[in-house]
Amino acid sequence: MVNSTSPLSLHADRLFPADAKVRDIARALYNEIKDLPIISPHGHTDPRWFAYDESFGNATELLIRPDHYVFRMLYSQGISLESLGIPRWDGGEVEKDPRKIWNLFAKNYYLFRGTPSRMWLDTVFHDVFGLRVQLNEQTADQYYDSITEQLATDAFRPRALMDRFNIELIATTEGALDPLPHHQAIQGTPWQKRVITSFRPDDVVDASRDDFATNVAKLGEMTGEDTQSWSGYLDAIRKRREWFRQMGATATDHGHPTALTADLNTSACEALFARCLKGEASEQEQEIFRGQMLTELAGMSIEDGMVMQIHPGAFRNHNPELFTKFGRDKGADIPSQTEYVQALKPLLDKYGNNPKLNIILFTLDETVYARELAPLAGHYPSLKLGPAWWFHDSPEGMLRFRHQVTETAGFYNTVGFNDDTRAFLSIPARHDVARRIDCRFLAELITQHRINEQEGFELAHDLTYNLAKKAYKLG
Amino acid sequence: MVNSTSPLSLHADRLFPADAKVRDIARALYNEIKDLPIISPHGHTDPRWFAYDESFGNATELLIRPDHYVFRMLYSQGISLESLGIPRWDGGEVEKDPRKIWNLFAKNYYLFRGTPSRMWLDTVFHDVFGLRVQLNEQTADQYYDSITEQLATDAFRPRALMDRFNIELIATTEGALDPLPHHQAIQGTPWQKRVITSFRPDDVVDASRDDFATNVAKLGEMTGEDTQSWSGYLDAIRKRREWFRQMGATATDHGHPTALTADLNTSACEALFARCLKGEASEQEQEIFRGQMLTELAGMSIEDGMVMQIHPGAFRNHNPELFTKFGRDKGADIPSQTEYVQALKPLLDKYGNNPKLNIILFTLDETVYARELAPLAGHYPSLKLGPAWWFHDSPEGMLRFRHQVTETAGFYNTVGFNDDTRAFLSIPARHDVARRIDCRFLAELITQHRINEQEGFELAHDLTYNLAKKAYKLG
Amino acid sequence: MVNSTSPLSLHADRLFPADAKVRDIARALYNEIKDLPIISPHGHTDPRWFAYDESFGNATELLIRPDHYVFRMLYSQGISLESLGIPRWDGGEVEKDPRKIWNLFAKNYYLFRGTPSRMWLDTVFHDVFGLRVQLNEQTADQYYDSITEQLATDAFRPRALMDRFNIELIATTEGALDPLPHHQAIQGTPWQKRVITSFRPDDVVDASRDDFATNVAKLGEMTGEDTQSWSGYLDAIRKRREWFRQMGATATDHGHPTALTADLNTSACEALFARCLKGEASEQEQEIFRGQMLTELAGMSIEDGMVMQIHPGAFRNHNPELFTKFGRDKGADIPSQTEYVQALKPLLDKYGNNPKLNIILFTLDETVYARELAPLAGHYPSLKLGPAWWFHDSPEGMLRFRHQVTETAGFYNTVGFNDDTRAFLSIPARHDVARRIDCRFLAELITQHRINEQEGFELAHDLTYNLAKKAYKLG
Repeated sequence: MVNSTSPLSLHADRLFPADAKVRDIARALYNEIKDLPIISPHGHTDPRWFAYDESFGNATELLIRPDHYVFRMLYSQGISLESLGIPRWDGGEVEKDPRKIWNLFAKNYYLFRGTPSRMWLDTVFHDVFGLRVQLNEQTADQYYDSITEQLATDAFRPRALMDRFNIELIATTEGALDPLPHHQAIQGTPWQKRVITSFRPDDVVDASRDDFATNVAKLGEMTGEDTQSWSGYLDAIRKRREWFRQMGATATDHGHPTALTADLNTSACEALFARCLKGEASEQEQEIFRGQMLTELAGMSIEDGMVMQIHPGAFRNHNPELFTKFGRDKGADIPSQTEYVQALKPLLDKYGNNPKLNIILFTLDETVYARELAPLAGHYPSLKLGPAWWFHDSPEGMLRFRHQVTETAGFYNTVGFNDDTRAFLSIPARHDVARRIDCRFLAELITQHRINEQEGFELAHDLTYNLAKKAYKLG
Repeated sequence: MVNSTSPLSLHADRLFPADAKVRDIARALYNEIKDLPIISPHGHTDPRWFAYDESFGNATELLIRPDHYVFRMLYSQGISLESLGIPRWDGGEVEKDPRKIWNLFAKNYYLFRGTPSRMWLDTVFHDVFGLRVQLNEQTADQYYDSITEQLATDAFRPRALMDRFNIELIATTEGALDPLPHHQAIQGTPWQKRVITSFRPDDVVDASRDDFATNVAKLGEMTGEDTQSWSGYLDAIRKRREWFRQMGATATDHGHPTALTADLNTSACEALFARCLKGEASEQEQEIFRGQMLTELAGMSIEDGMVMQIHPGAFRNHNPELFTKFGRDKGADIPSQTEYVQALKPLLDKYGNNPKLNIILFTLDETVYARELAPLAGHYPSLKLGPAWWFHDSPEGMLRFRHQVTETAGFYNTVGFNDDTRAFLSIPARHDVARRIDCRFLAELITQHRINEQEGFELAHDLTYNLAKKAYKLG
Repeated sequence: MVNSTSPLSLHADRLFPADAKVRDIARALYNEIKDLPIISPHGHTDPRWFAYDESFGNATELLIRPDHYVFRMLYSQGISLESLGIPRWDGGEVEKDPRKIWNLFAKNYYLFRGTPSRMWLDTVFHDVFGLRVQLNEQTADQYYDSITEQLATDAFRPRALMDRFNIELIATTEGALDPLPHHQAIQGTPWQKRVITSFRPDDVVDASRDDFATNVAKLGEMTGEDTQSWSGYLDAIRKRREWFRQMGATATDHGHPTALTADLNTSACEALFARCLKGEASEQEQEIFRGQMLTELAGMSIEDGMVMQIHPGAFRNHNPELFTKFGRDKGADIPSQTEYVQALKPLLDKYGNNPKLNIILFTLDETVYARELAPLAGHYPSLKLGPAWWFHDSPEGMLRFRHQVTETAGFYNTVGFNDDTRAFLSIPARHDVARRIDCRFLAELITQHRINEQEGFELAHDLTYNLAKKAYKLG
């Protein structure tokens, strides 16, 4: 059994394949790019951290409570969210003692064997906090104390960690109605270049939300546009995009249930928008409205140059009981089959050949990598492929992405890595996994004489750094 | 060409990868667990064998006639089922000479190259019957004689083989109306603990069957309940479950075409049940009825603690001409695409968070491993994942399962191996393949420093033995 | 950076895995079969080449303009088809200078890193043209001159290349209305045996085409049958099949959007055919008509012995703007999800057990390999599986095919390799990739002791040569 003296170490060759020849090449590639700055063009960290640079709290608050990867696994094994201290919307009692919660987590840490969470967490423990014994029931207190103490020091404040992590740029994600106070607060400071926002208008585009009409009304107030009219609504969105661009945004983000797009004529759009506003739209009409808006937003991207990220395919809040008690983002989002070839056609028919349009496609449905996404991105100049996402942001998931996408789309229709995380401390660990896996994939191609070594080194740089900067226009 | 002197050998390192480092670790893990007792919690062996311990017949009768893996391949290459002695329902002539059939099989044994059947059969030939030349046209008679002679000896009777195979426990599968005479026969003997039944109520739940109304009437007779009423029907099923539990059952099994579940109110259930009984239900209504029954059966599982196995996705009897001539289970079942995220929602909405519910999900559609099943099992406390099943119970199939499931669901939301077979002699071979592949997968994780060696050894034990006992409540 | 002196070499062990043991076995297998003659039973080369043996043109005309793999990738990165000299239907201006086009291609050749096009092209450059520096901007002129000069020599005329490439037989593909003049031209010469046609009746079967009624009328003129009647139409197709068989055809080919089949009664067929001819059929009716015709054509295959190839699943001409400007086959075909289990049932119910029927199934949807195609081919005597196709005709694509298909369908329900290409010069390269990947797969099975070495050698011969000759009746 693992005990209090089992050492925690990170092997220098972790994630590389066993074969000595491939491993040597993978290591050589990795050594060339491992210290390149981190570009994090899509994620969900809190801009407040970087604006005010306040200390993080205790180990539990930082590493467990916000991490739905962690508590979804614990919950799946019968550990209640209450016992993990996840706050209840209905005010129900939950565990308050962070140390007790940490101990519960530590005791069940073995459940994460073989998962990326385990690898990210161990890397954080080892590299960020300097811990050298494995986390388990016996070492739980030692962990809790050490982490919490370190978090109180200046070296662990957000900006110091940004430097230590060598993060050149990080993009947060905010809703269309967000006044972006924290991004405003850093305007005029050197951090303005390093912490930027992204425009995620789901709140004013998704008519299935209870607050849709209210949000559209607020959008009108914020912009001075008549958002009760279709054209005023579109203009209001244009104004918000402009404001986001002033706060550094180079990209928009769209988290729709499907990849459906639509291209209705103006009068049909007006009628549909009116029905949505009045709450009279059917589910199918709401879906068409979201699809129409993707096409409208693509048109705006052509106007203003913002890069468009489409993140479809999550069945959000699949567990209604849990949702009622605890709300969103509690590990109950489940991927669904997602179709792209028919779904994107209306948008592509209208704008797909326009060289000014830059769409980055993501998926939670790996069956489309080789069948739909690689052929689409390997043809349309407006399409590129985002990296392996969410449930697939893992060693095996990334390998499947490269193996299934590269032969048809090549490397240059991909855009480098996204960490897509709110777990700030894990960002270096996540990028490190991606860098190791990319180097492993390249090393396999080199060993099989499918690319040569020189190409491997160039590609390693491109996949780690250049492609992200170019695709997100961060140049 | 293979001839009568080509040796048959089983390499000690079979199924392990070529790399010496990985192979060494795989072998070390395997050596630790290869002799653990076999737990066979789901399968289709004949309880009569264990109750009366009579000798098996000849080689053909034991190894060819019941094995649809074998004759589906032969049939696909133009060999008629008649020539293989498969009995015809319409009384049509079929080959009667078992030796002639064996020779036909032997001559075409090369067709199985690269299939799991080949590996299972060679293991049976080598380990169970001590054969040391390869099976082919020239050695066919030698095989037939040797196997048939050995089968006549006491050492090859079912109970002796149970001991020799180190099978600690085997579960058979019986329909709801089965009086379980053979399980009764072993009650009070030491075999009662080793041979248990499982409750498979498809015969009284699937209203698309011609015999559905008859079966429901019989169910009433057997239980003394009024099965013409919805509540009486449910109570009758409860009583049968109780009877099965007395015969050792800890689990139920449900072989539906899809994973659809439903949650209708009582009056809708009553009306639907009545239409089904009268034969007035449409195909869609029969499907909803099966779905409603999965939810009802989940409720009963919470009451009585039985573990619920869901085996959806087979298009049974795809070949009507063959079905008319030869009946069920003749290799003409074809997997279909199977959706889980929407399909299971009604059941999960009702019971998914109940810690007393234990559902083991299987699939014939590998596209759902990473997309649907791992995320579902990695969230809901009531869900675990059954092993790679049927067409995927093979080295590559098992590897795909582990590679696609582990990162999101971990190891502890899986339940060990099922052989799911009626081919009794192949049970050790099948478990051996699973053990080798699991050790291979773990060895790869260790070599890539994704788990450590100590964890690998613990996991090897868990995957081989502990998880099955726990998941099926066989403690 | 790659420069004018970077050597171009093809490693003898390319595509083999790194592990020395596996590589040694793969090499040994490959050395046994690498010089076997090429059988090319399905492709799209121009029969005119072989009939008149005229020289090919310049490098651009031969290697870029006809290769939609090449310009789809360039187009996806913002390079216009006009600048690549692709002729416009509307007479719009396009680049005329082949050398300038070649230079543009050379400059962007790095985009193909990791793709099969890169491997095929490098093999053509190295093996066919004897080039020994890498293609890039600096070497572009040298390449253009060398290739264009060589093409003008007798050694580079089609028949000389047929001999040099060791192509024993090549099948072209022609529409039902093609008078096959070039195949006629070689009748009575020794080339008659080496260059044969295949019958692709999509033009007279697909009622969604604008020219359907015209084509059916032409079909009547060519055959003297009354193609306005259902029975006359079928007889006319029979006559065309006979004519194609005289020109060497042993196979038919069907490129439908889906795998749907139908089995209507005669009066329903008559009515549907009449609606199709009048242009009154809905999209769904046109789909059913295509499905009915697959069943009719299967019946004809039983009559006349032609092998039936079904190539479903491409969404053709997905990009309407590009289609309007440039026409078909410009890289805008995108695969779609394709269902087989339900779709093929009407045909299989009618003819699936008939040993005279030989259907070779292809797919662009890899999710059906293990789930649908292998189980279908591993049961029905009329079904075999075509090799990894089009987007999947690549090292990874072929490996996925073998890994996912073999355990259920075995090797003997597959049919060897198809190059399916119009890029004549790449044929040896494409077959070489397939041979290497098959040997690699077999070497892995041998190293894992899943087949023995002797079986590996037999299988290597079968997969390379014997299976194609047998499946396509080329014996």
